Amino acid sequence: MSPKGFTFSAVNAGVKSPAVKRADMGLIFCDREAVASGVFTLNQVKAAPVLIGMELVERGTLRAVIANAGNANACTGSEGMEDARRLMNAVAQSLGIERDDVAPLSTGVIGVRLPVQRMLEKIPELAQGLKDDPDVFARSIMTTDTYPKVVTHRAGAATVLGIAKGAGMIAPDMATTLAVVLTDAVIDKQSLDNIIKKSIRHTFNAVTIDGDTSTNDTLLALASGYMHENIDEIEKAISAVIRDLAVLIVRDGEGATKFVEVRVEGAQSEASAKTVAMAVSNSLLVKTALFGADPNWGRIMGAIGYSKVPIDPERIGITISGHRVVEQGREAQGFSEEFLHELLEKKDISISINLGSGPGFFTAYTTDLSYDYVKINSEYRT
Amino acid sequence: MSPKGFTFSAVNAGVKSPAVKRADMGLIFCDREAVASGVFTLNQVKAAPVLIGMELVERGTLRAVIANAGNANACTGSEGMEDARRLMNAVAQSLGIERDDVAPLSTGVIGVRLPVQRMLEKIPELAQGLKDDPDVFARSIMTTDTYPKVVTHRAGAATVLGIAKGAGMIAPDMATTLAVVLTDAVIDKQSLDNIIKKSIRHTFNAVTIDGDTSTNDTLLALASGYMHENIDEIEKAISAVIRDLAVLIVRDGEGATKFVEVRVEGAQSEASAKTVAMAVSNSLLVKTALFGADPNWGRIMGAIGYSKVPIDPERIGITISGHRVVEQGREAQGFSEEFLHELLEKKDISISINLGSGPGFFTAYTTDLSYDYVKINSEYRT
Repeated sequence: MSPKGFTFSAVNAGVKSPAVKRADMGLIFCDREAVASGVFTLNQVKAAPVLIGMELVERGTLRAVIANAGNANACTGSEGMEDARRLMNAVAQSLGIERDDVAPLSTGVIGVRLPVQRMLEKIPELAQGLKDDPDVFARSIMTTDTYPKVVTHRAGAATVLGIAKGAGMIAPDMATTLAVVLTDAVIDKQSLDNIIKKSIRHTFNAVTIDGDTSTNDTLLALASGYMHENIDEIEKAISAVIRDLAVLIVRDGEGATKFVEVRVEGAQSEASAKTVAMAVSNSLLVKTALFGADPNWGRIMGAIGYSKVPIDPERIGITISGHRVVEQGREAQGFSEEFLHELLEKKDISISINLGSGPGFFTAYTTDLSYDYVKINSEYRT
Repeated sequence: MSPKGFTFSAVNAGVKSPAVKRADMGLIFCDREAVASGVFTLNQVKAAPVLIGMELVERGTLRAVIANAGNANACTGSEGMEDARRLMNAVAQSLGIERDDVAPLSTGVIGVRLPVQRMLEKIPELAQGLKDDPDVFARSIMTTDTYPKVVTHRAGAATVLGIAKGAGMIAPDMATTLAVVLTDAVIDKQSLDNIIKKSIRHTFNAVTIDGDTSTNDTLLALASGYMHENIDEIEKAISAVIRDLAVLIVRDGEGATKFVEVRVEGAQSEASAKTVAMAVSNSLLVKTALFGADPNWGRIMGAIGYSKVPIDPERIGITISGHRVVEQGREAQGFSEEFLHELLEKKDISISINLGSGPGFFTAYTTDLSYDYVKINSEYRT
């Protein structure tokens, strides 16, 4: 069940090419002013919808979200900004709202202008097709995703709904992280901003498929304010939705065959722990060893060592899926290569690293690196 | 022709396992005290031979180098140090020199003790087999290398010989960069140190296959001092040898199908230029696009944008193999996707990026990312 006030629709607009016959443009509408919040990519090359979205959420409220797959509208200059505004304007007109009540989201190829004409023609159909079914919207923003990502959590009478697309953390012609969190709870802008920022810290910002960061990554949160509920309950539900979306994104990582949790503790600070966790998570040699179930813990030691965080190798302990692998920087007593190989053949793997030098900890989520990642990302897009 | 004073030998010692029937232990001997210099991995997890080698080159001279493939002698603690010293000692005895005249080099699996007994038994054979043929030594240190890497440059009467192994920039159970530069020129320790440090800056330190840095990477330089030559000539020859070795290592990168030069100019400093060049060189999405000849310049813009170096996207220009692709952060006038696709199908590719914001420049050398990289690095090593 979706939160009170929100409806959804999707159409095929042939965004990437008229030949593509799948829903690739989606609309979310809120029947009243929704309190709005958002977080956006830190990439310095920001797509037009990101630059516009950053301004809009500053204003504090939104009524609609117009999204497309197949084209990122990035590196398209002032024309790209104009293209996005024309779409926002058309949506506003067909819904009887203001242009700046409409937030744009795009994902797809970089550097190509949007086929605005084709898209404009479909907007009346989008506006007329609005229904209480978030799945149609979720499907319309999919790229290399293998399934739509929709999750719901309740906070008493209030509902929090999350919709996301993922795949690679970036892939200009294919994937970007877009997420929309919708709730009918009553919440003020400041609280919503704080909850979102807090929630992404250990979820969206703890996730890496290939270490690349998109020009388009965006998470929008809208609250329609129909249901009065305890703010702590609302925060719990929003955090849960965001955590679940982040996990779904990793599990559906491009070509991923494994879900890998990399926990680092005993660091001097959380920042140091995160640096080490990301170095291990992004190491191609660790990722390929995981893909091949190669019980090759030296690659993890290597990644820890080059992560730039000051460490004492002889204090490092590593446990993989419960099996003690490294003690004091060396092979642990009772380590079994064969047993570790068996553990690494499972779909879910946990790598726990203790640096033995402080209270800082951080958990990152990643995947292995398979032939399919190379296949998905090397195919010429014609 | 190898430099006067140096001889070489190699044997099969079954370092990885007695079943492996290829030369995997090599010796270099100098018939007199050689001025010695070296550079070592910056990885904080340093193998025993690295820790020992760093001490030895401080002393200023060496007489021999004992190297092995198949085992890195890393993460092996005090026993690993002891194992290395036992080998150094045995080599010293059979050559009638001091233990600390012998530098150890190892590459291979991390965390496993060296099979010292098997190796000790072979050392007399190594000492007796010394000949004027560097190729036997070059082959004995190969891992996933597909060919031995030996280059020579002349400096008047003096000769500079380089031997290296490469493949991945790290792969604990397979590859590491080891390099030995030998010359019969007369040169003092200080000059040799300076020349080596200067030479690696834009060669070995400008190379990346997978962004990982080994626990064992080592470059040793030995000068036997038979030939008096102009120091500038000697420096030129040493630099040329080191540059050639670096290029050979990239060309033989694990699974590489392309040799890619990434030049960044117009940066605020050389350091900024290097950061951007390395971000682009290490981007999985750029590497996979290169493998697939996908004319997807957005991935390069994306990598520049997340490289943390402050940039103005609208000042960025990109030229690929001579074809103007991006101007002012957008698709260049006259850009042809089809033509770029053709250019990317060639084996050698040059990516030239102008950030338009300063005098800093740097050129990095890398490869694409192919199925074979995943294959080579994901296979379980039993």
